[in-house]
Amino acid sequence: MTAVTIVEVGPRDGLQNEKASIPTESKIAFVDALSRSGLKRIEVTAFVSPKAVPQLADAEAVMRGIVRGPGIRYGALVPNETGLMRALDVKADEVAVFTAASESFNKKNINASIAESLARFAPVMQEAKRRSLPVRGYVSTAFWCPFEGRITPKAAADVARKLFDLGCGEVSIGDTIGKATPKDVRDLAVALASAGILDRCAGHFHDTYGMGVANALAAFEAGITVFDGSAGGLGGCPFAPGATGNVATEELVWLFEGLGVKTGVDPAKIAEAAAVIEPALGHPIEGRVFRALRKGSRSSQNPS
Amino acid sequence: MTAVTIVEVGPRDGLQNEKASIPTESKIAFVDALSRSGLKRIEVTAFVSPKAVPQLADAEAVMRGIVRGPGIRYGALVPNETGLMRALDVKADEVAVFTAASESFNKKNINASIAESLARFAPVMQEAKRRSLPVRGYVSTAFWCPFEGRITPKAAADVARKLFDLGCGEVSIGDTIGKATPKDVRDLAVALASAGILDRCAGHFHDTYGMGVANALAAFEAGITVFDGSAGGLGGCPFAPGATGNVATEELVWLFEGLGVKTGVDPAKIAEAAAVIEPALGHPIEGRVFRALRKGSRSSQNPS
Repeated sequence: MTAVTIVEVGPRDGLQNEKASIPTESKIAFVDALSRSGLKRIEVTAFVSPKAVPQLADAEAVMRGIVRGPGIRYGALVPNETGLMRALDVKADEVAVFTAASESFNKKNINASIAESLARFAPVMQEAKRRSLPVRGYVSTAFWCPFEGRITPKAAADVARKLFDLGCGEVSIGDTIGKATPKDVRDLAVALASAGILDRCAGHFHDTYGMGVANALAAFEAGITVFDGSAGGLGGCPFAPGATGNVATEELVWLFEGLGVKTGVDPAKIAEAAAVIEPALGHPIEGRVFRALRKGSRSSQNPS
Repeated sequence: MTAVTIVEVGPRDGLQNEKASIPTESKIAFVDALSRSGLKRIEVTAFVSPKAVPQLADAEAVMRGIVRGPGIRYGALVPNETGLMRALDVKADEVAVFTAASESFNKKNINASIAESLARFAPVMQEAKRRSLPVRGYVSTAFWCPFEGRITPKAAADVARKLFDLGCGEVSIGDTIGKATPKDVRDLAVALASAGILDRCAGHFHDTYGMGVANALAAFEAGITVFDGSAGGLGGCPFAPGATGNVATEELVWLFEGLGVKTGVDPAKIAEAAAVIEPALGHPIEGRVFRALRKGSRSSQNPS
């Protein structure tokens, strides 16, 4: 294996928890800058209730405003048929549905059991299939749940399996609260392989405890070749205010290119895109590659 | 292998680049808090010229002020015999000497060729041996040099080998500018194993490009069992102002404990120690485990 695919989720997963109201034009400029980085897949927004996620209330305007790059798939999260119709209306190239591996988390997050949320996706999947629209599934809290603690690999793999059975072409396995370590990743990879779905799963890691890059390494070596990243490490962990967010896209690129694995993505261009959105956030970008690349250099007297 | 040793270098490597003049009492309180975390080795300071590193001009006062915990080795960096004598005077349990794997870096850093710096250590090593004082060696820029670029594994292994030949009991292999990826780490591990010294080497990683934890994982799996960390991720990269510093001790602990590998260290206590020094820094602590553990929790509506 000499290549991986990176799915940029910054404009959606990265921005949805930001407190400042980010102007639509800034979001469009951000996505347009990302489109110049070599990325082939960008999750642009979510067609969810503006009451639930006010930050993404301008989903249509963003999708309509971006300049689409050649060969790039622009996706959007949809919770139900209404969301799907909105996404289709603005010609999303791909949609994503989401559920959790933890019953408690799903209840708290979307007020539905896992089974109920899967049932809710059935008509979405049917309509998407009719239109040959690719559907990605998200399994959040696939390793750890803030309410239940450890989620068994089997439980997470079962939910992923059900999403494939419903028609998802890819399922992104999310370490929502960032507590997973490479051992957890390897254990889940074994369960996904047993279920025959490992090669269609993506890794979605958060950096809350600094494990994002190490988990991506472990996942890659276990057979995963699609990774979600967020430019500049945008995204918060809603269960740890002030904590860091999604693993940074440019750190994934640094890792994989360093391993001799092609990403097709220019980390400096990702850092540029993060710099485009930074002024609208009201706080500095966290990503370490971002900071290393954007701050220049000087010499020093220090030994190590 | 089910245990690793963590060498805390925050009070020395972490603080030496800090711009604010940190009060001696804050440093002492920091080391004392670290002594309560389960760490068995702490590098407290450096007996270098106060002109070269003004931040550590109070080396004697710090060493004299700390309350030594049982079974903990308190070390100090020494560039030469004068430094060694100062360290002995305040009863350092261990000293460390340093050179680089890159000729250009060594020239710029300490104005000596690698051979010259090794020759300078000979009397230090003799005196340390006479007193049965353990000596650690540091090889900086072991993977990448800001002036020369890539350093070959053989060049780095050769310098490490020479430090062992001089009498070092352990050599810490440093990714000074943080550019190494797990592949570089594995390549160097092969060279260290060929030289017959891998099992006596420590891994010293920086997080400038977010690779610190992933590199520690790769190093551990290649056979390294001693790792340098800095509480809260203290420490800068002098070649990238504003960039992040040493890999955070508490992130190493999170990684290894998650892998089922004992560290003996309580990450919450490391975060507490980082919180002790934070007010004296004039900027927030960067470490992600630190931030996740110190900021509490709340619930949220967000899907992934």
